[in-house]
Amino acid sequence: MARKKHTQKILTQTIHNLSTPESYNTVYHEPNHGSPMPSIGELKNIMELIKEIIFPGYFGKDVLKEETISYYTGVNIDKLFQQLSRQIKRGLCFECQEQKMIFANGNSCEEQTEMLSLSFIEKLPEIRRLISTDIQAAYNGDPAAKSFAEIIFCYPVIKSLIHYRVAHELVKLAVPLLPRIISEMAHSETGIDIHPEAQIGEYFTIDHGTGVVIGATSIIGNHVQLYQGVTLGAKNFPLDKDGNPIKGIPRHPIVEDNVIIYSNATILGRITIGAGAIIGGNVWVTNDVPRGGRVLQSHSRTDNFELGLGI
Amino acid sequence: MARKKHTQKILTQTIHNLSTPESYNTVYHEPNHGSPMPSIGELKNIMELIKEIIFPGYFGKDVLKEETISYYTGVNIDKLFQQLSRQIKRGLCFECQEQKMIFANGNSCEEQTEMLSLSFIEKLPEIRRLISTDIQAAYNGDPAAKSFAEIIFCYPVIKSLIHYRVAHELVKLAVPLLPRIISEMAHSETGIDIHPEAQIGEYFTIDHGTGVVIGATSIIGNHVQLYQGVTLGAKNFPLDKDGNPIKGIPRHPIVEDNVIIYSNATILGRITIGAGAIIGGNVWVTNDVPRGGRVLQSHSRTDNFELGLGI
Amino acid sequence: MARKKHTQKILTQTIHNLSTPESYNTVYHEPNHGSPMPSIGELKNIMELIKEIIFPGYFGKDVLKEETISYYTGVNIDKLFQQLSRQIKRGLCFECQEQKMIFANGNSCEEQTEMLSLSFIEKLPEIRRLISTDIQAAYNGDPAAKSFAEIIFCYPVIKSLIHYRVAHELVKLAVPLLPRIISEMAHSETGIDIHPEAQIGEYFTIDHGTGVVIGATSIIGNHVQLYQGVTLGAKNFPLDKDGNPIKGIPRHPIVEDNVIIYSNATILGRITIGAGAIIGGNVWVTNDVPRGGRVLQSHSRTDNFELGLGI
Amino acid sequence: MARKKHTQKILTQTIHNLSTPESYNTVYHEPNHGSPMPSIGELKNIMELIKEIIFPGYFGKDVLKEETISYYTGVNIDKLFQQLSRQIKRGLCFECQEQKMIFANGNSCEEQTEMLSLSFIEKLPEIRRLISTDIQAAYNGDPAAKSFAEIIFCYPVIKSLIHYRVAHELVKLAVPLLPRIISEMAHSETGIDIHPEAQIGEYFTIDHGTGVVIGATSIIGNHVQLYQGVTLGAKNFPLDKDGNPIKGIPRHPIVEDNVIIYSNATILGRITIGAGAIIGGNVWVTNDVPRGGRVLQSHSRTDNFELGLGI
Amino acid sequence: MARKKHTQKILTQTIHNLSTPESYNTVYHEPNHGSPMPSIGELKNIMELIKEIIFPGYFGKDVLKEETISYYTGVNIDKLFQQLSRQIKRGLCFECQEQKMIFANGNSCEEQTEMLSLSFIEKLPEIRRLISTDIQAAYNGDPAAKSFAEIIFCYPVIKSLIHYRVAHELVKLAVPLLPRIISEMAHSETGIDIHPEAQIGEYFTIDHGTGVVIGATSIIGNHVQLYQGVTLGAKNFPLDKDGNPIKGIPRHPIVEDNVIIYSNATILGRITIGAGAIIGGNVWVTNDVPRGGRVLQSHSRTDNFELGLGI
Amino acid sequence: MARKKHTQKILTQTIHNLSTPESYNTVYHEPNHGSPMPSIGELKNIMELIKEIIFPGYFGKDVLKEETISYYTGVNIDKLFQQLSRQIKRGLCFECQEQKMIFANGNSCEEQTEMLSLSFIEKLPEIRRLISTDIQAAYNGDPAAKSFAEIIFCYPVIKSLIHYRVAHELVKLAVPLLPRIISEMAHSETGIDIHPEAQIGEYFTIDHGTGVVIGATSIIGNHVQLYQGVTLGAKNFPLDKDGNPIKGIPRHPIVEDNVIIYSNATILGRITIGAGAIIGGNVWVTNDVPRGGRVLQSHSRTDNFELGLGI
Repeated sequence: MARKKHTQKILTQTIHNLSTPESYNTVYHEPNHGSPMPSIGELKNIMELIKEIIFPGYFGKDVLKEETISYYTGVNIDKLFQQLSRQIKRGLCFECQEQKMIFANGNSCEEQTEMLSLSFIEKLPEIRRLISTDIQAAYNGDPAAKSFAEIIFCYPVIKSLIHYRVAHELVKLAVPLLPRIISEMAHSETGIDIHPEAQIGEYFTIDHGTGVVIGATSIIGNHVQLYQGVTLGAKNFPLDKDGNPIKGIPRHPIVEDNVIIYSNATILGRITIGAGAIIGGNVWVTNDVPRGGRVLQSHSRTDNFELGLGI
Repeated sequence: MARKKHTQKILTQTIHNLSTPESYNTVYHEPNHGSPMPSIGELKNIMELIKEIIFPGYFGKDVLKEETISYYTGVNIDKLFQQLSRQIKRGLCFECQEQKMIFANGNSCEEQTEMLSLSFIEKLPEIRRLISTDIQAAYNGDPAAKSFAEIIFCYPVIKSLIHYRVAHELVKLAVPLLPRIISEMAHSETGIDIHPEAQIGEYFTIDHGTGVVIGATSIIGNHVQLYQGVTLGAKNFPLDKDGNPIKGIPRHPIVEDNVIIYSNATILGRITIGAGAIIGGNVWVTNDVPRGGRVLQSHSRTDNFELGLGI
Repeated sequence: MARKKHTQKILTQTIHNLSTPESYNTVYHEPNHGSPMPSIGELKNIMELIKEIIFPGYFGKDVLKEETISYYTGVNIDKLFQQLSRQIKRGLCFECQEQKMIFANGNSCEEQTEMLSLSFIEKLPEIRRLISTDIQAAYNGDPAAKSFAEIIFCYPVIKSLIHYRVAHELVKLAVPLLPRIISEMAHSETGIDIHPEAQIGEYFTIDHGTGVVIGATSIIGNHVQLYQGVTLGAKNFPLDKDGNPIKGIPRHPIVEDNVIIYSNATILGRITIGAGAIIGGNVWVTNDVPRGGRVLQSHSRTDNFELGLGI
Repeated sequence: MARKKHTQKILTQTIHNLSTPESYNTVYHEPNHGSPMPSIGELKNIMELIKEIIFPGYFGKDVLKEETISYYTGVNIDKLFQQLSRQIKRGLCFECQEQKMIFANGNSCEEQTEMLSLSFIEKLPEIRRLISTDIQAAYNGDPAAKSFAEIIFCYPVIKSLIHYRVAHELVKLAVPLLPRIISEMAHSETGIDIHPEAQIGEYFTIDHGTGVVIGATSIIGNHVQLYQGVTLGAKNFPLDKDGNPIKGIPRHPIVEDNVIIYSNATILGRITIGAGAIIGGNVWVTNDVPRGGRVLQSHSRTDNFELGLGI
Repeated sequence: MARKKHTQKILTQTIHNLSTPESYNTVYHEPNHGSPMPSIGELKNIMELIKEIIFPGYFGKDVLKEETISYYTGVNIDKLFQQLSRQIKRGLCFECQEQKMIFANGNSCEEQTEMLSLSFIEKLPEIRRLISTDIQAAYNGDPAAKSFAEIIFCYPVIKSLIHYRVAHELVKLAVPLLPRIISEMAHSETGIDIHPEAQIGEYFTIDHGTGVVIGATSIIGNHVQLYQGVTLGAKNFPLDKDGNPIKGIPRHPIVEDNVIIYSNATILGRITIGAGAIIGGNVWVTNDVPRGGRVLQSHSRTDNFELGLGI
Repeated sequence: MARKKHTQKILTQTIHNLSTPESYNTVYHEPNHGSPMPSIGELKNIMELIKEIIFPGYFGKDVLKEETISYYTGVNIDKLFQQLSRQIKRGLCFECQEQKMIFANGNSCEEQTEMLSLSFIEKLPEIRRLISTDIQAAYNGDPAAKSFAEIIFCYPVIKSLIHYRVAHELVKLAVPLLPRIISEMAHSETGIDIHPEAQIGEYFTIDHGTGVVIGATSIIGNHVQLYQGVTLGAKNFPLDKDGNPIKGIPRHPIVEDNVIIYSNATILGRITIGAGAIIGGNVWVTNDVPRGGRVLQSHSRTDNFELGLGI
């Protein structure tokens, strides 16, 4: 009995401690107007809807006939419009500073969110076209690939790129917060971390993909092929007078058309990898590479050495 | 009101654009006979069933007594037989070219799918035996491992290998598409990417595992141990006269018995790593390594250098 | 008909084979007293509850007002206490050898599990405080970060560290098995593999994160920053007279305050990386690095070489 | 321990007893060809789909615009066609006696099920029209009704009649078993038990409804109104030489146009209630009632009597 | 092939027929401002929340301690406030005629819905008190009742009355449509049909209950007890010049304190059943009954008669 | 702002009011030892399991082969044993007065619950046999019935009797509370209210069923057939000196073999309806009826009378 009382006392005390503003204020964000936060769950639904729209028959419903595609697309677009409008509104409220949100174009908040949602949806045919070039690139680049369908079903690069291309379109519409959440979903599922602000051309592919990082100011041309573990990162970035990193400065590589970068290569800084260059695996590159150039790791030692059994 | 009309007009137009054959044909695959596509959802259920069958008490139901194991196994096998037959049929239809599917052995499509499903199920005791050697290898290779049960519950290598060993068995039965989907599930969850066509012996283990890639024509002996980030990849592959990669040529390493390969090593091409060899971390190997050989990275510089704060 | 009989015969035979003790004993663990095994599903719920408690408004419920935080926290703590007590009990039973479980402090099994669960819950405010330092470190270390909320929502390092900091607290309470299951959840989702026994200070951050490995006896100071693919591993470990690795020997690095380690660096063995040191990307370090030291990869070759198209 | 063994022994014995054919054969029905039984769960989904199709905006999706109705209807019809075909096939198999099911019209089983499913769907606009007359009758007959929408949302008679009108259409197509299952769903939900073979005209309504029974051979005209507890039943039915009731003989009342029958009246046998007749509450009628006739209960006693407190 | 085309043609034609305004307009209701319709699903959730709040420990969560009741109540009230406000708004929009909804008190639509929702919630303690008198009446009236808890768990009258007392409170707040939906839920589950506008005193109980009907203008005193099948109905109601029933005229009985009405009795019209009266089963009453009066059915015949076997 | 504060103040006040013991104590039941209350949700699962066990192939799984019945039965019995033991324990705790629960047979609480659960399960084959007689009776009694399977799928009497026969078996084992909850589930679904303490013979059937009430001390022989709306009730019951009904006195009818009772008949008091008697519809019987006797309602008036349009 005494034990029960003691238990309850500590629970009550901990609840109190966790409910004091001093404790939760460090991690608490109250969006403006008491509006709700973006919902990761609904953003997942949104991505499922988009996959069903882009790839009829693969996701969601597994039998799809030509005659009925338009009905399913119609319903999915209608749902997407509602759900995406709601989440975009939450994203805007999240950053909004003013009590009355009026946009530069004179739109009310609701008008603005519907306008943004609509602008995004209008781009879906183009997003599908881009992804279809990526599928073709994956097929051409991998001797183990047997069909386009296999690539759509299985290849992590396609999961990653549909998230990237959607998130990037939202970046272009200046929607806050949502693009990062969407791209992190793909990072979690595939191990491929593409910042939604990066610019990537057509016919892009990544084989295997785990560990790839593509930084926010990277610019990638057409027909570029990466392998697992490649980093397109920043080398250094200037600090402001308070010692904080200055935002928005170009600091990641430019990779021109037809470049191939092999596994675990690390490319750092605002350098240019010229068109058609090939970067070997496990190298560390911090200088420009000319068009058609090749970079290879220095030779490994192959001799006897003492090494234990594990890590 | 005008805004509402404008919105609806754009939505309707986009639905139309996405429903024209020109748009969806690039990503659309209609399996033969209008039969449905393989279902990723049901394949996930199938893998859950197999885990419950192989590891009684760990997955699915958390209390299991010796007296009731046969009931649960009986029900799970019955469900597995039905679900797997259905998905194998979808896999076969997916590739099938002819209107009437008659197999070399004279089987109808339904007979063939049941025969394949049955052949797979017959192999489950052997798959369990193989996985139990892998568990033992993981236990022996990791001083942090405390029990077999901990390894079954927590170690990503076991998740990865149960998917691999199941998918590889389906490869041996020439089931199309399904093996790749199954192995990608494990890749997504563990960051370990094992192609289902690779051949892997007993007592195989991978520590940590994120970023490991094992290519389709790799051959791995018994008692082999890998660490995270290891690539067993292709160095180059011949193109046909149209510039497309020729399929099916051996292009990945042969790793003999008792080899250890440390983290982030990259082994490329149809080379042989001789029995008992040790490959150090972060190296790039493109030539044969003799039995008992050692390969180590060249020395790093340890001096002052200018480097910024981030990537 | 004959086919149906044949099918059923093989299914029945396989069920029998899988239900014989010889087959399942290799992978079967019967916890003491016939009590159930830990449930991965409920441990996932527990982590969801903890995330809701630590980050009010981000997870679970998306509208949260200051006036109602205490109600939600109260309910979540009450649920957590019950679920965590149940799982801790299963963890204790799992290892328990004796028929009657009496603890050194004279507690019965139930008293001990409630005591441990309570001790953990009492630490939640401190866990929240620690995570909030990690959020600040992530914000300061990444010029692309726009707000604390973005970091909580999106950054894999935060997912990873909340699992680590929870699991580590359970390690300190000597709860068996659960910490490893909890940390593997984060490994699977983020590609960051932190052993729950590692010791990590405040203001810790990892950028991108995929492929990071932090071994069980690692000690990490305050204000340390890692990048993707960094390994803090063991170089070798002594074997006992039977050839098995000896457990519990310190074998992973000590990383002092304010160290930065760039992507894919591999640091092995019980060495010390001195305060303020910077380790470059893709290097392999097996010796101590002095305070303020710098380690950089040797130069790559940049020349023409023969390399194929893929891996 | 002995107790545990005893427990397991009894469980095992009971499982055995329940699995012997002698036990389960009394309640077991194996449909022909080993095909599955009709699924009550899927039939519930089918009724939900039909409700969504008939009443856009009330069930399923709660926001529906004129512009998008055709998309939602298209998807729902497509789903309905597939699910209903599957269940009709199960219904046919259920009764089928022959190994090879060939129908009088030369159809295969699959062709026949699709033909029946299609014929049903073609009738949906007419079913909607009929229900809309019933809604109008409910509105006119109840001074408490405030709008058509209130009637669609709340009135049990509408739930009951949509099930009846759907089931009756399936009766007309000679689909076995399904109509009874569908009408019992409505009976369970509303307490109104309408046999699907009964014939009911337009503008039919039942107020409150609990306890109403309408037998299989009843014939009801237009503009008929019933109250709760009314029975349209059989008075007696001839037996065959084995003492079993002869099937299919008309044995329930004919109720002509514009009849009103008040609560708990019992009308038995193949009698005719003439057009415009009014039947009072709690009466028992076994003879014809002429056009415009009135039937009323004999007077109750209103005096002191001894009666206890309960039942 | 021809068959497939024919099938698709008929499906497409039916979709078209169902999507023409002429077809769906008869059953379609577009609420004002394009706002959504009330959601039956969410109203069910609302009733679950209210049951959890009123009866802590019985519904929802099955372990509840005194120390934690306030947390659970706090969370449930917060959820209820949000969900109920949303549904009340939909109810108001449903009836709203004007483009800009301004209420007599000057409230905007959102202010009005929150005000109504709040007013309802404020009444919950009183609703709990009333229900607790009903529980006591059920306990006293039924010799088979063993505990209050059994009554709360099992007795349909309690399910029915909690819906009635909630719906009646919403009627008093002039919330449209929702009260009827809520009371029909209970009708469907219990067979007891209480119109939410009826007025019912304290300590009210109904035994068994199936088939009971209590009309909209009924007035019931305290300590009244009904049995199954009792109707408190209208005898007739005046029509307006168009032949439609005139709304809102008192037309159902007044039942004074301490009345008992036995099973299947039918009481019709605006008559008064005086305090303490007892009405026997199966009677039909259309005149006032004095205080303390008794009404009994006339004697049944008990003789031989010709009757068949079934209905 | 002021409005928000006002709202929150009222919500907080109401939460407080509902959390004071004075408010919730009237409806609150704390079972002994802080153990949880019976769970209606799990009792529903238990009934689903029992239906699957009794009727293989109809409920739960829709394809069942003779070869696999024993596996499914084994799993379902194992689950049933665990779930039923847990709920029986809750039922016992609910009534338990003492701190240490020791039963007359010397069993601990856990031993007693397992013993009761086991005794129940042992009766399942007999329950199945009884239900199969009821199915036969329903088939013989209804000319509209086409097959046993139709009766199992559709007839409410079977739903009702499986609940009754299960609940009655628990009554015989003196399990508290659970039988009433189980029988109320069937009442809610079918409108048939059978008290679990009633005694009912073999070959029992009820046609249509809505509104039937069978009181707690009723005794019903073999081959008895009822119709909808029949009441077997109490006429009066003696009060104790405090005016409360005395519990456990026989007060409901005895109905001997081969009796038929037509719709809406009311039979009250501890009278005997002799074997082979027939009771007509809508009658009120309070005296014994001899063997083979007939009871019929007195004649209705059939004349003109003034009656309105509705109720």
